[in-house]
Amino acid sequence: MNKIEQVAVVGGTHGNEFSGIYLLKKWQKKPQLLARNGLDVETLFANPKGFEENIRYIDCDLNRQFSLSDLADNELANYEQSRAKAINIQLGPKGSAKTDFIIDLHNTTSNMGPTLILLKSDDFNKKMGAYVSSKMPEAVIVFEDQTTMGDLYFLASIAEQGVIIEIGPQPQSVIRQDVLEWMEFMTHTILDFVELHNKQELPSLPVSYEAYRYVESLTFPQDDNGERLGMVHKNVQDNDFKALRKGAPIFTLFDGSEMTYDGDFEAYPHFINEAAYYDNNVAMSLGKKIIVTIDQ
Amino acid sequence: MNKIEQVAVVGGTHGNEFSGIYLLKKWQKKPQLLARNGLDVETLFANPKGFEENIRYIDCDLNRQFSLSDLADNELANYEQSRAKAINIQLGPKGSAKTDFIIDLHNTTSNMGPTLILLKSDDFNKKMGAYVSSKMPEAVIVFEDQTTMGDLYFLASIAEQGVIIEIGPQPQSVIRQDVLEWMEFMTHTILDFVELHNKQELPSLPVSYEAYRYVESLTFPQDDNGERLGMVHKNVQDNDFKALRKGAPIFTLFDGSEMTYDGDFEAYPHFINEAAYYDNNVAMSLGKKIIVTIDQ
Repeated sequence: MNKIEQVAVVGGTHGNEFSGIYLLKKWQKKPQLLARNGLDVETLFANPKGFEENIRYIDCDLNRQFSLSDLADNELANYEQSRAKAINIQLGPKGSAKTDFIIDLHNTTSNMGPTLILLKSDDFNKKMGAYVSSKMPEAVIVFEDQTTMGDLYFLASIAEQGVIIEIGPQPQSVIRQDVLEWMEFMTHTILDFVELHNKQELPSLPVSYEAYRYVESLTFPQDDNGERLGMVHKNVQDNDFKALRKGAPIFTLFDGSEMTYDGDFEAYPHFINEAAYYDNNVAMSLGKKIIVTIDQ
Repeated sequence: MNKIEQVAVVGGTHGNEFSGIYLLKKWQKKPQLLARNGLDVETLFANPKGFEENIRYIDCDLNRQFSLSDLADNELANYEQSRAKAINIQLGPKGSAKTDFIIDLHNTTSNMGPTLILLKSDDFNKKMGAYVSSKMPEAVIVFEDQTTMGDLYFLASIAEQGVIIEIGPQPQSVIRQDVLEWMEFMTHTILDFVELHNKQELPSLPVSYEAYRYVESLTFPQDDNGERLGMVHKNVQDNDFKALRKGAPIFTLFDGSEMTYDGDFEAYPHFINEAAYYDNNVAMSLGKKIIVTIDQ
């Protein structure tokens, strides 16, 4: 892989996820905190109007607007669709982007701890996961690298390489110190990794490590009218990345009954009860545990 | 005190506090769950438009619109100000209300557990606190009964007697089973208390119990332009109702420095880092621990 020179650190893609927004303010005052040899690191505040209104988005989720087809569709003209086009010009254009690497900063209301979401499983990303794990043992590495997802619609997909930092639990519109510190440390660690990668000075990394791969999303039980019938079972709540086995309770219905997990694999739920996913009636993501091996 | 006959259980005063809203749906299907001998219990969904928009309020905080002067001011005509007048007609009118007792259901993003907020410290309320504590040892009793607050602006103040149930931690726009169960149990327990109180069949209550009294609110540090300079210190975060002593760190500034608590009393913070209070730059409430004694 070519050297990475141009890097963008993006915060506030969702206007009520405060950690990235307040870190941007800090880094804009002290750009030396992000500076690394051989890298040109810029910061971008993706959805300032969302932050102003203290809401995830004004018209639609900005982090779903970056597929090539949508970026090319001039009929898509609401606030976030317009921001996507402007950001694509600033950092991209996608396909031949001037930015080599994007770090997009997010919070979740789920108890996911400091999670690094990798969009590819190439050597660069696998090594990044290993490096971050080695510097930050509490970090969780998740691959959302399915080829079935086709043309990715995430902001971080504008560049050839991009990752999402996703840290919780943090309620929307709140700043927690523990979450802020995790995000700051993970961002700095990733920039360190990129510098060392460029210089071919990476330390020796573990041969393999545990991570998760996204498989599918699970929706809340609903009746025929689309009325929600239940909630995440209290045994599952807050247990992101803990194994969920067939037959275990997964939802408690408002009538007091329970539903069990009847999937055909040992699932590792995450984004459990994420507030922002209620819009689409999504209760959680399910992943599989994987062992990532590094080519030495 | 006269018998209490007409009771209103109110949910969704804030549109993104989901526990009360989903409990109302349940109770409306099974009104027998709220039924008590000698009581006429109605339910009211206070801010349906806020819930529809998945937001605390449309124009202004509904739970601040119930002072007598504001209710009488016909110039105050936005959505929540209009809802307040409509609710005041339905449950009140304040001053000579047809409703004897209101239970208003709220959630907080703070780690307050199941908290009962009492707006008066008369015999009825003090006994209610004792009864709820005895049935629910994890409950916290808070008196917000300062005469300095004058004409209360809370919805629960429409009736001669009213209380606020405030349960967290729960992110806005989320349903947690543990929080929902606490709210359901506390509501049922209060209705039991009212029934027993009417019949003069209260069990023997403890002579005294620990509770808290609200003293003041503390704001986040800001610069001269109103820009927020820091966050709740991680030692304080989630430690609602734990003693805070003079000299203990209370805020961490974004520049890394710390501010300490320099108050002149042993404070018991609550509503720590509540998302909804950022609008007014409020970081937490401070209370004092008190011993409530019951007249036998």
